[in-house]
Parts: sequence; structure tokens; C-alpha cells
Amino acid sequence: MIRIAVLGCGRIGAMHAYNISAHPRATLAAVFDINAAAATTVAAKTGAKVLDSVAAVLADATVDAVLIATATDTHADILEACIAAGKPVLCEKPIDLSLARVNACAAKIAGSSVPIQLGFVRRFDPGHRAVRTAIATGDIGELHQVTITSRDPGLAPEAYLKVSGGIFRDMTIHDFDMARFILGEEPVEVSATASRLVAPELMAQLGDYDTLTVTMKTASGKQAIITNSRQSVYGYDQRVEALGTKGMAISENRRPHGMTLHTVDFTDRAEPLLNFFIERYREAFDVEIDAFVDAIEKGIAPEVGFEDGRLALVLAEAALKSVAEGRVVRTSEVG
Amino acid sequence: MIRIAVLGCGRIGAMHAYNISAHPRATLAAVFDINAAAATTVAAKTGAKVLDSVAAVLADATVDAVLIATATDTHADILEACIAAGKPVLCEKPIDLSLARVNACAAKIAGSSVPIQLGFVRRFDPGHRAVRTAIATGDIGELHQVTITSRDPGLAPEAYLKVSGGIFRDMTIHDFDMARFILGEEPVEVSATASRLVAPELMAQLGDYDTLTVTMKTASGKQAIITNSRQSVYGYDQRVEALGTKGMAISENRRPHGMTLHTVDFTDRAEPLLNFFIERYREAFDVEIDAFVDAIEKGIAPEVGFEDGRLALVLAEAALKSVAEGRVVRTSEVG
Amino acid sequence: MIRIAVLGCGRIGAMHAYNISAHPRATLAAVFDINAAAATTVAAKTGAKVLDSVAAVLADATVDAVLIATATDTHADILEACIAAGKPVLCEKPIDLSLARVNACAAKIAGSSVPIQLGFVRRFDPGHRAVRTAIATGDIGELHQVTITSRDPGLAPEAYLKVSGGIFRDMTIHDFDMARFILGEEPVEVSATASRLVAPELMAQLGDYDTLTVTMKTASGKQAIITNSRQSVYGYDQRVEALGTKGMAISENRRPHGMTLHTVDFTDRAEPLLNFFIERYREAFDVEIDAFVDAIEKGIAPEVGFEDGRLALVLAEAALKSVAEGRVVRTSEVG
Amino acid sequence: MIRIAVLGCGRIGAMHAYNISAHPRATLAAVFDINAAAATTVAAKTGAKVLDSVAAVLADATVDAVLIATATDTHADILEACIAAGKPVLCEKPIDLSLARVNACAAKIAGSSVPIQLGFVRRFDPGHRAVRTAIATGDIGELHQVTITSRDPGLAPEAYLKVSGGIFRDMTIHDFDMARFILGEEPVEVSATASRLVAPELMAQLGDYDTLTVTMKTASGKQAIITNSRQSVYGYDQRVEALGTKGMAISENRRPHGMTLHTVDFTDRAEPLLNFFIERYREAFDVEIDAFVDAIEKGIAPEVGFEDGRLALVLAEAALKSVAEGRVVRTSEVG
Repeated sequence: MIRIAVLGCGRIGAMHAYNISAHPRATLAAVFDINAAAATTVAAKTGAKVLDSVAAVLADATVDAVLIATATDTHADILEACIAAGKPVLCEKPIDLSLARVNACAAKIAGSSVPIQLGFVRRFDPGHRAVRTAIATGDIGELHQVTITSRDPGLAPEAYLKVSGGIFRDMTIHDFDMARFILGEEPVEVSATASRLVAPELMAQLGDYDTLTVTMKTASGKQAIITNSRQSVYGYDQRVEALGTKGMAISENRRPHGMTLHTVDFTDRAEPLLNFFIERYREAFDVEIDAFVDAIEKGIAPEVGFEDGRLALVLAEAALKSVAEGRVVRTSEVG
Repeated sequence: MIRIAVLGCGRIGAMHAYNISAHPRATLAAVFDINAAAATTVAAKTGAKVLDSVAAVLADATVDAVLIATATDTHADILEACIAAGKPVLCEKPIDLSLARVNACAAKIAGSSVPIQLGFVRRFDPGHRAVRTAIATGDIGELHQVTITSRDPGLAPEAYLKVSGGIFRDMTIHDFDMARFILGEEPVEVSATASRLVAPELMAQLGDYDTLTVTMKTASGKQAIITNSRQSVYGYDQRVEALGTKGMAISENRRPHGMTLHTVDFTDRAEPLLNFFIERYREAFDVEIDAFVDAIEKGIAPEVGFEDGRLALVLAEAALKSVAEGRVVRTSEVG
Repeated sequence: MIRIAVLGCGRIGAMHAYNISAHPRATLAAVFDINAAAATTVAAKTGAKVLDSVAAVLADATVDAVLIATATDTHADILEACIAAGKPVLCEKPIDLSLARVNACAAKIAGSSVPIQLGFVRRFDPGHRAVRTAIATGDIGELHQVTITSRDPGLAPEAYLKVSGGIFRDMTIHDFDMARFILGEEPVEVSATASRLVAPELMAQLGDYDTLTVTMKTASGKQAIITNSRQSVYGYDQRVEALGTKGMAISENRRPHGMTLHTVDFTDRAEPLLNFFIERYREAFDVEIDAFVDAIEKGIAPEVGFEDGRLALVLAEAALKSVAEGRVVRTSEVG
Repeated sequence: MIRIAVLGCGRIGAMHAYNISAHPRATLAAVFDINAAAATTVAAKTGAKVLDSVAAVLADATVDAVLIATATDTHADILEACIAAGKPVLCEKPIDLSLARVNACAAKIAGSSVPIQLGFVRRFDPGHRAVRTAIATGDIGELHQVTITSRDPGLAPEAYLKVSGGIFRDMTIHDFDMARFILGEEPVEVSATASRLVAPELMAQLGDYDTLTVTMKTASGKQAIITNSRQSVYGYDQRVEALGTKGMAISENRRPHGMTLHTVDFTDRAEPLLNFFIERYREAFDVEIDAFVDAIEKGIAPEVGFEDGRLALVLAEAALKSVAEGRVVRTSEVG
């Protein structure tokens, strides 16, 4: 059993804590949150102990590994401390909102063999993963175009949006990683179109956007297209499509159940989509913990690591520059 | 070009006339209806001549073949006359509401090689036919169960229901033929359950039913299940499903187009089904004429002939007897 | 927290034990199995104690309630003992293979207010339940026809089939309950057609069947149709369809994920269905425990109780008699 | 009856001729093709007369209107001649490959009230049109993003590709019009990404592309995304999706029939998509003729006219410039 401590007991940290607690090959060793009440709540339900600082967690011999789900601006510091302490890390995305900080972090941890896994959970979704597999097995031939539709059911709270780093670093970051995962090679050109349509005034005030299209191209000419919106009222819209020389693979949306209604006015009416990431990526969050435990048990590099986190951020920077300058930006300009 | 005369210019006769008129290997030679105005209307749109009696049609040397779409109680007489005149016939179902009359007709035309095709148009539906093909090619292995869902969008007019011969002979007759087509062998046992739910008073008055389930079994144990209703408000519900040792084939319903709507309340909301047989079986009606022209040109027996019409009626009789007596009826008891 | 003991640690008992262990409002108090090793395995993973007899479980003051997942022939005895001991029971179906024994049990426990819940888990499936809700809310108007397709992915082991009580009591029993649940009123007539197609020799030897169609009718004429097969190679086929005066509701099958493949030979190719009941009814098994805990906490009668188990068995008896006698059987003849 | 002459009897001209011939409110008055044999073939099947020049057609008093389906480089000249002769025109797209020529044509016909309809047939597709209707009726609220997937089943012949004017003017032109149709306002910014993946050598030789993504933005920030490929082996991929504040509408692909196959390896396997435009847009081609006849009969401007043809070409020019210069291009720069 791998004994994992969870740092940060907000919504996603608490979810991870419960998943770890129920995992057949892991136990929840300890929890920490700057808000002690949040940690206590999770501890009460799981039997895990509460520790009162990151340092206490890293000093605890019963902690084999750490999951970082604290505020984004603490990720890099904690990650460096974990590596220094020799504790394998599963770090929620993003590593940091600043590419410079991420690069500095990369320099600091260079040479370490302690496993670092980045929390790009969508790679572990059975449907999206099956698209990747369909490419890997040759089922759709040589890949030509990847289309990622990724829309949140509704605008996040204003307080969150103010510190999110903007849509490209907060939301599209997942899609940049998905594009890299499906493409199997690096995008070298990025072109982005951004609008303020969902909440025009708030977005203008924040200097942010709510509706995006990003097109990327690899050196060999493969294309990846991301469409984002902060509001898809019909649920959390998460689709991945890959076109190749021999066919196409699509990972479709998911609903809470399969009941459809048929009346004089319509047929096939189904439920709205699963509302948000905890429901939609439920299996993926489980498999993510599996993968982390596997990496630790087998001493292998996690499938999705620090550099994946850094490269997704490079794409976000390139996209921001593309919007600002109205032109195609090469990743070499920002990375 | 095969020159075909259409007898009966009601809704279905007129439709056949227009289809023949537009057919690449057929022409509409003549039309007849006891209501001269109906025939004149069709003639005006197609350029076909109007003849004033069945005898005139049969005597006309420019008529190569005849399509019978007159009132049901005239089918058998006209069919006999056509065969006597050596004119190939495409006869709308049923041959007659009386099995005795059909048997007498069979005796009368015995030995003739003039092609007779029965109007079981659904056999020519590309989807249903693909189910049959999936069985014939072995795609689903040995057949075990056939499930036919067949529901009319709404109750026919009372005037029609009074002369229809009842739901088994009028509506289920198509499904009996479909069951035989898909099964590829003869049902020997029939068990039927009938209810009056759509229009209880009218049905009681007519001694008829509006909601049915029929289960049939072949000598080898294969099962076919038909569910019928006189009212499916979401459109004309026409599905065929076949279960075999290696898989299942389903012919799904059809909609006028593929637009789906997704809102805060639902996803995937599609249009109601195509409303009725002329729209739903549009291609099938075309292919039915193709098959008739093929049979005539090549001098071969039509794929669906007189005996198919007779055997479907035998199943209807068995089902009626099953309802009356509350027991399984063997087709040998009525056929 | 409701402290539940699980009796019987075979496949389904062990699953229940893990579900209870992870349940937010329940704990696994104890486990028992006549095979001590089976109980020990479950105990090791959950921290529950192992008790060495049913009597020990019933005498244990830390056991608030009991889940019976032992061999079928012990269900009725244990259930009676639980009621005598005042322990609420969740009993796996069937209560017993003998209707006489079930009736005797009913007489014995008459008058008790200790909650008894029957393990008809499918009632808690979100999709099937949504069909029931669509009827209850009037979305599809007055109900006319219910169609239940229920097929196991493959034949159970011969050893199991020998003691299963036959397909009607073992497999169709779930569908009889589903029919009652969806109909909302009692079937009064039963007509069944049975074949030996999947394993003809074994079935003949066992006096059992592997391919069924059952048609039932309520006093008001509503119809329910069940199609069963012991082998649907494309996965566990579990569909429920309800036709009413205002529309239709369908609970569709479920797949492990939503990836579809499209090539030169086909489009929309999806994964086989979820293979069997533990995967297919995963949420339903959780909700079943919720419902049991609710009933205990609130002191209310469980939604699906002893009489539901008895009435499903009455329908099984009627169906068996129908097959034997080739006729419609009224439930009053057997119940 | 509107008497229509068809100029050009190639694949699409012949199809139009047959459709007009079968149309209830139109007749095929005459046909012309520089290849007399092509015209003769169509005439033989329809009974229309063959004329030996465009001039002869325009001089013929029995010709009420003209459908131009000749080679692209003749469209503008013939269109001008038709307008001069006062004959309403349905002109296949594009008007010309040169925007300068189209602008000159616009100047020449300015002030005429003779109806001109452009052959953007997809506007008449029932599914795509239902997306437009869902917006117009408010069903999906304010529009934010339009996504058009448009892929040909396979590469056109090299001979055609050499004279096609390139993918933007030949293929994407339809999608530019569809984007304008769905958006309901004009794109002002265009950004395009182009690759050579299907036939890299041929495309490099032609200076053309086979795989595209185009992103457009209107003045209000609405976005339209087009993905194109010259090769989708699973059939003719034609989808339109619109996201709005209240929901989403999708026009899905179409298959020849609704049979799906389910085996041990897969479920829901359907036929490849309808292969190409004549099959896929069959109804749309009929409705296009309806609309043309309506415009003539009622003396109203066709729904899709000359300026629509010109504006689609402006978007093509902007997209080409965007690819060449690696930047966002404003339509005002080219239009």
C-alpha cells in the first residue's frame, strides 16, 4: 500500500483524498490545508491524520508520496520541497501561471529521479484514451486533424476568475495537453481567436476572454483545433475527435443515464450532459491514482510529467501572444 | 421500358403511379379508378391515358403489366383476371380478407407462370433488408429471436377501420410477412395478446383491437415477437431487431433530418419520426417497382409472391384464434 | 451510521460488503460465510469482523441490520430468523424457489414491522427509474405497452444452472419485477413461449430453457413483453421501453465509454456493452444500499419488499404453467 | 409551370435536369452542352429539346429561366447574358474564380431586377436549415460559436484539381457560405491554417492544400470554425454545429439506412456515410429548385443571391492571404 498525503482539501483535494482512501493499493496517510477545518472534515470521513504544515507532511516517515492540490501559486514551491524530500508527487495543474517560474522549477529539480506526475486527468478518461489507442494501433491510419470541443457548463465565480491566470492558462491548458496527447508530436505553430461573449463586461475588466478557438500545427502539418466556451448550458461538453487516413475516432459526451424521451414534439430527448469534471471524469480520477501508484511501485516515470505541464503552458503563452498580435506564433518564440 | 397500368388512384395508387412515371425502366401506360376524377388527376400530372374499366386495361396491348391498388375486396377478382389475361401483377396487400377466398384464388391461378408480386413493400426497405442480409451472410450467426416493433402514428379514420378486416389482417399482416422474411423459416405456433387501449369504445364496437403483442415460434424454436399499436404519437415506429448466436442487427427508425437540440433541460432532442408509410418507405416503394420490373424483364418469379400473401393471412387467422381461445394456436389448425 | 452485517461472501455478497464499507451512512459491521476463507478475504480488505454463524450475527448488538447473500435455499430461514431477532433485512432475490415456502415465510413474518427489502436492484438503475418517473409525471401519458429486453452475455456455468431453479425463477424474475415496477399495476394474465437454442442439449437435460418471450396483461389491458436470452455476445443487454398515449420512454444500454470508430467500412462503431450486472448496475447497487439505509433510519417500509419478491415468483409460476400447457394462465390460478 | 433550360449536362447539370423534369411546378424546356452527346443523353431521358448554343437558349421564347451548370470559367459571361436577356438564373457556384471578374460582373448587372440565385445548395438541406431555424426562433439563444466540419470522401481527380481554383475557392466556398448563413452576420476577420497531408506531392506541385482549418470572427465577436479535408474515408462528412447562450444545435451526418450491427467485438456499427453530394444533399437539390421556382413565380429576390456568391469568394481570398502571410486578415483588406 502506498501511503499518500493530500495537501489542500478544497473541492478537488477532498475528492482525491476520498479516492485515495478507497483505492485498493493506496491509503490516505495524512491531510493538510491552510484552512484547518477543511482538513479536519476530510480526516473525519477517512480516518487520516491531520498535519499542520507542508513541512510536517514532508518530515513524516509514514508518508510515501504527496498529492498537491493547494492554491496554484504554491504548487511550484511545494513541488520543489517534495522533490528535495524525495517524495513522489502528483501535482494538480498548472505548475504555475508563470512560464518563467516553471522554467526555474525545472532547473531546480533537474536530475532528480523522484517521480512527478502532472494532474492532466483527462488523459486517463477511457473514451479519450480510446481515441489515442485507435491512433496507436493504426485503426485510423496516419493522423491529420484533431478537434477538441471543451466547454464548461457555466462561468466560474468572479473571485476565481480573478486569480485563474486567464482562460488559456486555466481552462485551455487541459486542451493543450489533450492536443499533445492525441497528436503524438509537438505543435510548432499556434493561432488563436478570442471573444468576450458570455460575460463581456467582466471579461473586458479582467482582460480575459470566455470564447476561444485555437488552431495548432505540428512540423509535419498535423492540425489540432480547440474550441472553448465558458458556458455550455446543456452540461460539460467534452469531446475529442481524430481524423486519419483510414478513419476517424470520436470520444463522445456522457450523460448520467440512458433514458430517452419521445413525444409528439420530438424523439431521442436525453438528459443534459454530466455537469462538471468530478462527475464527467470520475473514472479518470481513479485511473490517475492507479497510474501514480504504478509509477511509485514500479519506479517508472509517470506517463504525464513535469515537462508536459511546462509544454502546455508554452502553448498557452503562444496562444496569448497570437491573440495580442493577430498572427500565427511559433512555440519557439515563447518556449 | 415496361408499360404499367395502375388500377386504383387513391393515396397509395397515385403514389405508385408517380413512382412508375419517374422510373427509369418503366412508364405509366394507363390509369383506372371507379372514381374517374381520381384517375384524371393522376393522368394530368403524368401524361398517362385514362381507361374506364379493368377490362379495358386488360385488353390494351400497350399495357405490359398491372399494379392493383383498388379496394381490398376487388383484389382477388382483378388478380384472377390479370393472370387470365397474361399480365404480370403487382398486387397491394392483402389479397383478400378471407382466407377461403385467397385459397380459392390460389386454386384458380395454379399452374400459371405469369409473375405475381405482393405489395409487402417493407421487404425492400434498405434498413430492414440489411438485417436480412446480416443473417444471410452469417454476420449474426444462427438466428434466435426477431423483434418487430410496428406502430402507426395515429388511429385510421373510423370509416376505414370498419372495412379494414381488423388490425391483424390490415396492419399486423405486414409484420407477419416481415417476421417470415427475417426468420427465413415458417412459424408453426402463434400466440397473441390483444387490448383495447387507444380507442376502447370504438374497438369494442368493431370487435377489433388497437394494441397487440404476437409471439410466434418456428419448428426449430426460433421466436418472432411483434408489438403493434394504432397510436405512437412520436411518429411511425418501424423497427426490426434480430438476435443470433454471433450478434444482433437492428433496423432503426428514421427522422426527416439529423438536427438535434441541446439545452439546459435536455440533449440530443431530435425530430419526431417520419410520419407515415409514404415518407418512411419512400426508397422501399421505389425498389419495389425495380423488383417488379426486374421480374418481368427477366421472366423470374418475384421475390415476394402470392403464397407470401396467403401465408401472412394464415398467421393473422391463427393470431385471431389465439386471442379468442386464450391459447397457442398451430398454423396447421387454420392454414 | 447503520452497522450492516453481510451473510454470504460470494461474488455478489463481497460486492455488497465493499459497497457498504464505502457508504457514507453505513459501515460493514461483520461478515459471515460457510466458507470461512471467503469471509476472511472480505474482512481483510474492509476491517470488518468475521462471525462464525448466522446466530452469532443475529446475537451481535453491534449489528443493526443484515444483508442476506447466501445460497438461495437458505434465504427464507435466515430471513425468518432476522425478523424474529428484529434486524432489518436486505435479502437477495429470490426469497425461495418454492412459492409454497415463500407463502409459509410470509405467514410466519406477518404482522412484523421490521423492514424487509428485496434485492431487485434494477429498480434503482437511474435509466430504468427515469422511465418509471416519465410515467409518474405524465410525460408519456397513460401507459399502454412495456417492452423489456433482458439478455445475459453468456450461459452461466452448468453447476449453477442445475440449482438455479430454471430461467423463469432465476433470470426472468428480475424482469417480472421490472414489469410490475413499470406497469404500476398487477399483471393478471401470463403467456410464455420458451425455446432451447443456446444450449439445446443441456437445456433438454435440465428441463430448462434459454430463450424466452413472456407477454403479460393487466386487468386494464396494459401489456408487458419480456424477451430473454441466455446469450447476447455483444454484452449484457438491458433495455426497458414504455409506450403511452403521449409518448415513449426508453432506457438504453450502456457501454464502458463513448469512443466510436468510423472507417471506410463502417461508422459509429462502439464498444460492446458493459459485460455483466456488477458493472451495468454499479450505481444501482449503491442506490439500493442508500434506500435500505433510508428505510432503517426513517423507519419506513422499503420501496421494494417481501411481497414484491413473492409476486414476481407468482408470475414465474404462471409463466411455467403457460409453457407447459400452451395457454394463457391467470395469476389467480397459481398465486 | 416554369420552363427551365439547363446549360451544361455534366454530372451536376444532368442531375438538375432530371430534378427539374420531375418537379411538380417546373418543366425542363431545353438542354445545352458544348459536348452535344451529353445534352442528347439528358434529352432522351426527359423529352427536353437540345439547343446548340447559349444564344439559342436565350433567344427561345419557351425558356422562362436558365440553370447554369457549365464550366466555371463561363459562368460570369453566361450570367451576364441571361440578365441581359431578362431570364432568371440559377447559377452553380462559384460565379468565377477571380474576385475581380465577379466584381466586374456585379457592376454590369447592377440595377437589374431579374432574379439570380446562387447554387449554395447546402442552405436548403433540412438538417442544416433546422440549425438556422433554431437560432432564428431563439431556441439556442444568442449565437456564440459555429463549427462546420466538411470533408470530401476522397480526393477529386487531378485533372479537376488543376482547374478548381484551389481548395478555398472550390470546396471551402460552400462552408464560407454556410458560416455566413448560420452566423447571420458578416465575418470581418479570417485566419486560416493549411496543410498538405492527403496528397503532399500533388498539392505542393499545384500550390494547393488538402487539409484546412479556418477561423472567422464577426464584428460582435461571434466565431465560425471550418475544418476541411479532401479525404474522409468513412464517407462525405457534413456537420454543422451552433453554440448559443441557451443551447446548441447540431446537424448530424447521414447514412443510407439505419441498420446497426452488434457483435462480440462491437456495438452500434452503422454504414459509412452517404458517399457524396448528390446523395447527401438529394432533398436539398429538390428544395433549391423549389426556391428558384418560388422566386420566379412570386417575383421575389432569391434567398441566396449574387452577393452571397461574391462574399463567399471574399472570404476565400482573405483565407488565402491569411495562409500566405501567417496572420489574421480583415475582409476589408480583400473585399
